[in-house]
Amino acid sequence: MSKVRVAAFSVSLDGFGAGPHQDLQNPLGVRGTELHGWFFPTEAFRKMQKQTGGTRGMDNDFAEQSFENVGAWILGRNMFGPIRGPWKDDLWKGWWGANPPYHTPVFVLTHYARDPLVMESGTTFYFVTDGIESALEKAKEAALGKDVRIGGGASAIRQFLAAGLIDEMHLAFAPVLLGEGEHLFSGLNLHGLGFAPYKTVMGENAMHVVLRK
Amino acid sequence: MSKVRVAAFSVSLDGFGAGPHQDLQNPLGVRGTELHGWFFPTEAFRKMQKQTGGTRGMDNDFAEQSFENVGAWILGRNMFGPIRGPWKDDLWKGWWGANPPYHTPVFVLTHYARDPLVMESGTTFYFVTDGIESALEKAKEAALGKDVRIGGGASAIRQFLAAGLIDEMHLAFAPVLLGEGEHLFSGLNLHGLGFAPYKTVMGENAMHVVLRK
Repeated sequence: MSKVRVAAFSVSLDGFGAGPHQDLQNPLGVRGTELHGWFFPTEAFRKMQKQTGGTRGMDNDFAEQSFENVGAWILGRNMFGPIRGPWKDDLWKGWWGANPPYHTPVFVLTHYARDPLVMESGTTFYFVTDGIESALEKAKEAALGKDVRIGGGASAIRQFLAAGLIDEMHLAFAPVLLGEGEHLFSGLNLHGLGFAPYKTVMGENAMHVVLRK
Repeated sequence: MSKVRVAAFSVSLDGFGAGPHQDLQNPLGVRGTELHGWFFPTEAFRKMQKQTGGTRGMDNDFAEQSFENVGAWILGRNMFGPIRGPWKDDLWKGWWGANPPYHTPVFVLTHYARDPLVMESGTTFYFVTDGIESALEKAKEAALGKDVRIGGGASAIRQFLAAGLIDEMHLAFAPVLLGEGEHLFSGLNLHGLGFAPYKTVMGENAMHVVLRK
């Protein structure tokens, strides 16, 4: 059955999913890239970068699985870009260049309408202004029976969690202290929402936990 | 050099060091024992219980190291017992029976004076009413050059952290969601306080991280 899932989402020891002060130089917030120290050395990540080599251990297994059977993505607006408020023009096309790593329809949550943006190799960004339920409905339809992956950031995931719309989350706990930034858990009770660890794997550079309802 | 350290302190994925609603039946709060799933199977824990057997992997290494070179302990009052307010009598002698697992002087933080309590095999509980700095001073003197271990709970550790008095923390991140309870990190910025991961080891049932300044 198709799932609505979060996958390969990195969390610091102190619960942050991104650093503070996101801007053009810091797409993941200040020190946010440190969260992904487990992901960058993997073969899966290097393939995304059109590079060869990379590790093939547990971390890579989870990185690969995160892309399998995904039919559509949903991203928060900050994950799509650093721009706040209305779109001034159509110049910003995401952080990822002409060929983003999604290769599916991608639904971007925003308060400001914008025409769809067709990128290379199957990625099209659609801008959804009427809320998370609508975005999920559109994504499920576009996914053609495959999974919908909620890519992030923390704020988008929190909204979907609070609304009870997520079936599964794979979180990668990274040995990093951020101290400030975008908190994933604060004010949410994941146990109360029905989640429990379904599978735990000690990776080379992160502890992987799959949470399910 | 002697250190002030936290060791073998278990933390849930969502940052809790104990469950909610501590009482006689739940010394670690509701579901708090689940945090220690990595500790209970170890040889070190079984020895504490006068039992043989137990695991001898990474989890056990950290469990053993947590007791090495400790000259004195400091405990918060809730870690000593469930009683709130003044001591009504001297009947409560801790959670651990006649022979507690400390075997050193133990300084208990409380607002209510009480005579020292001499237990079997080297453990004496001293009740300190004049604050954490005083408790630490007394513990350092009693430790005779060995380490002072801040045993917990979360609230006591947070007070020592905020005051800049802790040198090292070994935290065991357990694949458990508590959802509520005593939070270790909330409102504290460990990165801002100068801590960074010094060593990370993937244990059998927890991710062990040693934080140092």
